[in-house]
Amino acid sequence: MIPSEAKRRIEALLGARGYLDQPEDLRLYEYDGSQDKARPDIVAFPRCTADVVALVRLAAEFNLPFVGRGAGTGLSGGAIPRAGGLMIAFARMNRILQLDLDNERAVLEPGVVNLDVTLAVQRQHYFYAPDPSSQKACTVGGNVAENAGGPHTLAYGVTTNHVLGLELVLPDGTVVETGGLETDLPGYDLTGLLTGSEGTMALVTKIVVRLMRQPETVKTLLAIYDSTEDAGDTVTEITTRQVTPVALEMLDGVMLRMVEEATHAGYPLDAAAVLLIELEGLKEAVESQAEQIRAACFACHARDVRIARSAGERDLLWKGRKNAFGAIGRVSPTYYVQDGVVPRTKIAATLRYIAEVSGKYGVTISNIFHAGDGNMHPIILFNGRVPGELEKAQQAGFEILRYCVSVGGSITGEHGVGMEKLELMPDQFSPASLAMMQRFKDVFDPGDRLNPGKLLPTGRGCVETRFQGMAMGR
Amino acid sequence: MIPSEAKRRIEALLGARGYLDQPEDLRLYEYDGSQDKARPDIVAFPRCTADVVALVRLAAEFNLPFVGRGAGTGLSGGAIPRAGGLMIAFARMNRILQLDLDNERAVLEPGVVNLDVTLAVQRQHYFYAPDPSSQKACTVGGNVAENAGGPHTLAYGVTTNHVLGLELVLPDGTVVETGGLETDLPGYDLTGLLTGSEGTMALVTKIVVRLMRQPETVKTLLAIYDSTEDAGDTVTEITTRQVTPVALEMLDGVMLRMVEEATHAGYPLDAAAVLLIELEGLKEAVESQAEQIRAACFACHARDVRIARSAGERDLLWKGRKNAFGAIGRVSPTYYVQDGVVPRTKIAATLRYIAEVSGKYGVTISNIFHAGDGNMHPIILFNGRVPGELEKAQQAGFEILRYCVSVGGSITGEHGVGMEKLELMPDQFSPASLAMMQRFKDVFDPGDRLNPGKLLPTGRGCVETRFQGMAMGR
Repeated sequence: MIPSEAKRRIEALLGARGYLDQPEDLRLYEYDGSQDKARPDIVAFPRCTADVVALVRLAAEFNLPFVGRGAGTGLSGGAIPRAGGLMIAFARMNRILQLDLDNERAVLEPGVVNLDVTLAVQRQHYFYAPDPSSQKACTVGGNVAENAGGPHTLAYGVTTNHVLGLELVLPDGTVVETGGLETDLPGYDLTGLLTGSEGTMALVTKIVVRLMRQPETVKTLLAIYDSTEDAGDTVTEITTRQVTPVALEMLDGVMLRMVEEATHAGYPLDAAAVLLIELEGLKEAVESQAEQIRAACFACHARDVRIARSAGERDLLWKGRKNAFGAIGRVSPTYYVQDGVVPRTKIAATLRYIAEVSGKYGVTISNIFHAGDGNMHPIILFNGRVPGELEKAQQAGFEILRYCVSVGGSITGEHGVGMEKLELMPDQFSPASLAMMQRFKDVFDPGDRLNPGKLLPTGRGCVETRFQGMAMGR
Repeated sequence: MIPSEAKRRIEALLGARGYLDQPEDLRLYEYDGSQDKARPDIVAFPRCTADVVALVRLAAEFNLPFVGRGAGTGLSGGAIPRAGGLMIAFARMNRILQLDLDNERAVLEPGVVNLDVTLAVQRQHYFYAPDPSSQKACTVGGNVAENAGGPHTLAYGVTTNHVLGLELVLPDGTVVETGGLETDLPGYDLTGLLTGSEGTMALVTKIVVRLMRQPETVKTLLAIYDSTEDAGDTVTEITTRQVTPVALEMLDGVMLRMVEEATHAGYPLDAAAVLLIELEGLKEAVESQAEQIRAACFACHARDVRIARSAGERDLLWKGRKNAFGAIGRVSPTYYVQDGVVPRTKIAATLRYIAEVSGKYGVTISNIFHAGDGNMHPIILFNGRVPGELEKAQQAGFEILRYCVSVGGSITGEHGVGMEKLELMPDQFSPASLAMMQRFKDVFDPGDRLNPGKLLPTGRGCVETRFQGMAMGR
């Protein structure tokens, strides 16, 4: 419960319509795209940096835990208020403050929706590169917190490669600017440190991003396989031929059937796997690369290679990929998406390992992933209403992630650790590295009031909380 | 002076040939590529991480300041032991520990020379992208400390974009690994934070870098102008035409005459400016881009555009650029290189401002710079033996850098702050940002023994020390 004096002060600051504290409203803010849940005591909607400063100071005064929230589309529980308290939602701080196309920069408030940045500049032939699947809903503030990626990460990198500067409100209410309009400013790279810190260090109130020129030509190919092994080999073959697609996505048979049934994107129902490959650049270069890609696919026994002949066909092919998670929801009421990374050369072996895990636990696992980055998204289907199924799914998922670490990879590529993967951090990092990270957290937030119980394992019974959350299903 | 017990322990650890402490030897370690000087009390040459740990612990035990050193080619005094004490030189830790071409990774010791990485993989058609002008001598450890750039930064980014993981020895002797073989690992991005921290947080003992595929074709063009304004306009024109060269370098008339006289690279002696432009990629794309670049140059009144017809001609054009600083040394015994950054659209205005400053102070200023990045290198020529000249040069340089900040740029693009630009940090950053950085420094190095007096202004009389150093000339 939030003290009534704190509530009165929030109302004085933001007005009666500037916050929510009724149970029926708060219920909408207790979850994100992951399995976990926790309800905030109050949700406040600041309109400017000064409002955020006032809220953060108030949280300090009343010793309230607090957490920032964008659109709540995160996949690891980053915006879930595990300890209750104050949620600071950025829905009203959604203005594009500056567009400077000559210098290819934009200055954004954290609540701007990812896709809206591109929409604001596309007539001038620019775009904002990071493109998470949720880009129609997710906010750039959330993207910064989680260092979001997307299919085009392969060519353009993740969010951190596109963020040049930040305005931050620290947990003590201090406002700090890091970076700026130029790249590679002197001093410690606090912009880079904050990006991907999963909302545990500071609240971001302003973001300077890099804009990019649209390519002259885009070409999208769909390669169809009778074996996942062949599809995996194609990824290696493509790099051997020195072609770098801007996106290289793989869907296995289970996944492509679910997607096709939901979206009618034209994926073949009887295939074992498809690769969705995108090329960008100057027309001549793209034509020549498309030929090389085709040859690589056929050399690895592709059954067919289709090339989108229009923007409409291209959008259709991507529609299947981008709506994949919705498609799964139609088939399985509960599922568990994992987000491991392996070296590109280990993709085929990892797929075999995933199949073994699937057999061992008797759960269906479908695969959709950023093959070019080695960023795997095994999706474990289970029935949350059958006792023990959830635990089995989670154990299977963790077994896969531990395998990823064992072959030189990582427990998360783009979804973050959040509360979901806390227990796996000691598999990824040494005690000395974790202690180092904790010292950084303490610099920003010595009282551990900002987004407590995320990213860094504390040994405070995370597993129980998580299982309770997950058992509620979605 | 170093206590004799400390020296005895260093000898026991590294052997009699593992350290230097005679004045005639120490003199070689008192400077780098900047104007400053300070002599270490002892220089130790560790062979492995365990040696570094032992040295760092010993420095803690005897409360000695200590500093890491690569090849000493830095341009801002980063490796200069301002406070004396122990210098840890990485000359013997120069092994390439691992090359994994399938996954495009290399694991390096910090003393590996930058160019040696490319030499080790070029027969397999790979390269290591960051290419500072000093790449034949400078080490990857120093590159990490300073976040080094180079002409190809325009396409490939600076060192931080190519470093995936680090092994660090903290000032208390703890060994921490950050990042790893994969990109975008979870947790706070300590790899990014350390890269560019100018040797003030930890010593780097192992570096994981990304390797890149050689492009199919490289094409180098030299465009010749009768006016610097026209050359500046060409930079804007090239971006307007949506062509992105991998390098776009500008030399003004003063500079190109010095360079031509020293290197006979074929630069015209009577021109006002030249642009050195490089394109890379698939053959067809490069051909078509070269045509567009040519058109852009002529549209901006280039007198001539030459295209290198062979690898030999290409190397010759670059030889001029890469040996520019040597060339200046032939003409002016003392000079002062600045390293400001401005938005690309402000290049022409900045050149005009630099000309004004040149007139105001009565000093010759020559310009050579990474035009595509807006990273200016005005070079102020002066005679260090004439009293007052040095101070004038420095004032002129600082005035230019303050102008860069005022138009939205930065006081350093790639050389670092070091001890050289400490006084300018308050122009670039707010007190809150600087205080934040100091808190990070304190996390790593609470005793301020690692590379003291660098990067962060402390108000401890930096200016005097610097002027003393500079007055000694080079």
